[in-house]
Amino acid sequence: MTVASQIKALAFDVFGTVVDWRGSISHEGEAIGAKHGVDADWMAFADAWRAAYQPAMERVRDGSIPWTNLDGLHRANLDGLLDRFGLAGLDESDRDQLNRAWHRLDPWPDAVAGLIRLKRKYTLVTLSNGNVALMVNMARRAGLPWDAILGAEVARHYKPQPEAYRNTAELLALEPARVMMVAAHNDDLAAAADVGFATAFVHRPREYGPGQTTDLEPARDWDVIADDFLDLATKLGV
Amino acid sequence: MTVASQIKALAFDVFGTVVDWRGSISHEGEAIGAKHGVDADWMAFADAWRAAYQPAMERVRDGSIPWTNLDGLHRANLDGLLDRFGLAGLDESDRDQLNRAWHRLDPWPDAVAGLIRLKRKYTLVTLSNGNVALMVNMARRAGLPWDAILGAEVARHYKPQPEAYRNTAELLALEPARVMMVAAHNDDLAAAADVGFATAFVHRPREYGPGQTTDLEPARDWDVIADDFLDLATKLGV
Repeated sequence: MTVASQIKALAFDVFGTVVDWRGSISHEGEAIGAKHGVDADWMAFADAWRAAYQPAMERVRDGSIPWTNLDGLHRANLDGLLDRFGLAGLDESDRDQLNRAWHRLDPWPDAVAGLIRLKRKYTLVTLSNGNVALMVNMARRAGLPWDAILGAEVARHYKPQPEAYRNTAELLALEPARVMMVAAHNDDLAAAADVGFATAFVHRPREYGPGQTTDLEPARDWDVIADDFLDLATKLGV
Repeated sequence: MTVASQIKALAFDVFGTVVDWRGSISHEGEAIGAKHGVDADWMAFADAWRAAYQPAMERVRDGSIPWTNLDGLHRANLDGLLDRFGLAGLDESDRDQLNRAWHRLDPWPDAVAGLIRLKRKYTLVTLSNGNVALMVNMARRAGLPWDAILGAEVARHYKPQPEAYRNTAELLALEPARVMMVAAHNDDLAAAADVGFATAFVHRPREYGPGQTTDLEPARDWDVIADDFLDLATKLGV
């Protein structure tokens, strides 16, 4: 595989690619529901919270609201959802604690072992829309061995805006072709490819649960197509 | 010690505090001199290169030149020095290789072991004037276990400008009092204290060699005063 020899750094999408947000958020919802004697469909809660994610970032991208990091967007989205799930009575402390559930997402089973292998050869950075504190807290809890936390908050642009990708390559002092975007999402890879990154698609067919309909297959002939991070390491010769 | 219980993150100065720039740069100078049959005082070479560091950053701070990262400043300073040390004939490739000597600095003997201990309890970040690529390459080579690479390039302000410290606390989503600056330099700690950081002075009495006259002692009653990073870990209860 010739692309592997040109690559110096791997830039990772995180939500869905490295960690299972849906399982983790539904468990956190269930726990806070139990504390308050509330029963609800906590998978639907996770899905509803996540569904508000792109529209909120879009308001930042199009300039309707000033720069707001993901903790801030998540919190506004949460406040708008609680009533639907019987949690309108949560106080500030509970809301803040629940909002930080995104800092406590669990990695997919192969993620940590795969990253440890990949780190032997490649610089590993986050290129996520998550903010720095979220990424740092997640990494410390889950053991994700990043070399640096880059991406949206540092670039002040949310993916798929090209500035988010370009800023990451610039901060690493690498030509875009030396950086490989790793994501479970075709649109993320397309935006990375547009600025010259190499691309690796990783299958995460359960990110949205058993009924997932999107990103089940690579939409293009990406440079690498992998079943999980261990397969990615093997395909990159690590 | 009451301050230790309030602290969540340690922000490290790097050049002189974590790594021995003088010893490392003089060795790199000696090596490239040997390659080209040039003999010179390589400790003086390291000192001269380092002496150009603050004036170059000052031109960025005062706005006389646009934002330039440390690799860029180091390179301009190097080009201005080579003639004095018999190296005016170095070609572009050798100059670039020598400029990246700052990416290959060796840690002080206690640094890695101390950081590994400290990381058990605290988030560890760089708050250096070095750029991200420099810090990432240094950390991968030396085994420095940073949780995030923050500081001047991310903040677009060189220390001791307050924005460099404030940006670091903001990206960690921590009140400044929850962040402890760790440095071997009193002026760095003073600037950090001015924005509300806690402070730890680490003795590095050989940073400038056996004749060092500055920063031999803490200039104030900093929150912690430590002999090295192992002593810092002990004093922070790790």
